Amino acid sequence: MVDALAARIAAGDPLGLARGISHVENETEGFEALLERLDGRVGRARRVGITGPPGAGKSTLTAGLTRHWLDAGLRVGIIAVDPTSPFTGGALLGDRIRMNELATEEGVFIRSMASRGSLGGLATATREAADLMDAAGYDRVILETLGVGQSELDIVSSADTTAVVLVPESGDGIQAMKAGLMEVADLFVVNKADRPGADRLEKEISIMMSIRKGNARSTDDTAWTIPILQTTASEEKGIDAFAEQLDAHFEWLERTNRLEKRRSARRLGRAKAVLIRRAQRDAERIWQKEKPEGLAGDSPYGLARALHEKLRAEARDA
Amino acid sequence: MVDALAARIAAGDPLGLARGISHVENETEGFEALLERLDGRVGRARRVGITGPPGAGKSTLTAGLTRHWLDAGLRVGIIAVDPTSPFTGGALLGDRIRMNELATEEGVFIRSMASRGSLGGLATATREAADLMDAAGYDRVILETLGVGQSELDIVSSADTTAVVLVPESGDGIQAMKAGLMEVADLFVVNKADRPGADRLEKEISIMMSIRKGNARSTDDTAWTIPILQTTASEEKGIDAFAEQLDAHFEWLERTNRLEKRRSARRLGRAKAVLIRRAQRDAERIWQKEKPEGLAGDSPYGLARALHEKLRAEARDA
Repeated sequence: MVDALAARIAAGDPLGLARGISHVENETEGFEALLERLDGRVGRARRVGITGPPGAGKSTLTAGLTRHWLDAGLRVGIIAVDPTSPFTGGALLGDRIRMNELATEEGVFIRSMASRGSLGGLATATREAADLMDAAGYDRVILETLGVGQSELDIVSSADTTAVVLVPESGDGIQAMKAGLMEVADLFVVNKADRPGADRLEKEISIMMSIRKGNARSTDDTAWTIPILQTTASEEKGIDAFAEQLDAHFEWLERTNRLEKRRSARRLGRAKAVLIRRAQRDAERIWQKEKPEGLAGDSPYGLARALHEKLRAEARDA
Repeated sequence: MVDALAARIAAGDPLGLARGISHVENETEGFEALLERLDGRVGRARRVGITGPPGAGKSTLTAGLTRHWLDAGLRVGIIAVDPTSPFTGGALLGDRIRMNELATEEGVFIRSMASRGSLGGLATATREAADLMDAAGYDRVILETLGVGQSELDIVSSADTTAVVLVPESGDGIQAMKAGLMEVADLFVVNKADRPGADRLEKEISIMMSIRKGNARSTDDTAWTIPILQTTASEEKGIDAFAEQLDAHFEWLERTNRLEKRRSARRLGRAKAVLIRRAQRDAERIWQKEKPEGLAGDSPYGLARALHEKLRAEARDA
């Protein structure tokens, strides 16, 4: 079954791809074998992360960028990570409609993934879904997430190039610097640039970056200079320049051998994540098998230790 | 060393407690033994979760509630979970100052915990920190978190009673219903009730709840009716009523035997979380021991499988 599904994905069959991603998302029997089978086909797609606060227009920007790439004859895979938070909200209706229009086009594959329980590993599952899109021959894979929470940042930081999208009105500049986002940004997009404050925000980001650069005292003359772009995605303004800068960043990664290094490091990190997931699944399995219904006078730590010992005994007896 | 530290915590020594929590937070050698040693002393404290969107005044409300309990001669432990998100922001400066004033008072113990890497388990570590406060003799433990993200909701839902704090202006009512928060709320607080829209928000929540109740078609006449309170925490208005309702909820839990059931279920859940954490740590340890520097032509899945096999072989040889 794994062989047949792998072949369908390798042939670019969208239904096979959809099934493969569900396989990975639900961690059903054989999902790792599927990924391993397709591993040799992974690495051709350029991966772009798009993140930012709620209401920054990430979906509209994603739609615009996708249209741009489609026009250039490229195939585009999109992974939209749905937020679990009640307060940060999901995409606006208009954005979803724009995305749905795209979804029916030849050469576009859209998948939304939601964060699951605490065993989660959404970051790993998202990367694996991106791998499958890559193996299915999509030239670009966009990972769109809300810039809220560590796991969301983990997701975008697995991309080759990450764009942080901000909007003028909300004082996002300062906020972005507070944590995380400065570190993941390969380029900044000031979206909704037709609104007041766009130039001010651009200047703000630029000052923040020069302070940061000063602190780093880099003498590396191959360093990347993070561009700050203005777009009005709802009117398709600035999309071409955005796509150009994404290409420029990717070419810089290739030219300076950073692409290979980054991707190798990430593949190694993936091996570790998969190892940890396997160990978690062992624990989950022994729990399901033993089905403890109560502590029977034991402490939670005593019960955990006993089941952990059973897990090790199982390995001994195997 | 574990014995000595456990004795200090049991005696209510704040420095010992602080050290114990760091022990748990960093998962340093012996931290589970410490928790196991103190397990018999856990269960006396009432745990209250306070959550809500950024800017709802959670810290101010926490400070007011703490003051109220101190005046009643109770000892109060507070765990403030700092958000990792750049966009949701932390507590406002004024709140932090208010909290810092409290921190110097006899009978108050404040600890902030930040979310860590993906191995994380912040929810479990937070619960364990609450256990230590409980074992140290604090009568009330407040878990204050932002109502954003699944792991934050996991934290508050470990409390005996969870209060969801909303504010009039931001249309939070509808948002709160979207996901998660409706399910964790044992009571609602409309804070900043001196601002316009407080009554409207109260009505909104009330309508949402009656719809929900209608759907559930509960015939359970011991069911809890979720109260909606108005407070202006910055002026200490409504705090007494808030504390009263928290007590009423706790007494309802006791009276209907729900307290015992809930706590037993949570202790069992803790055992599972500890088991999974142990398995993760095994994986982490074998990774550190083998220190793979590259994949050497293998796929990430091949390497993970090989190391997983080593882990099992270790158990066999033990």
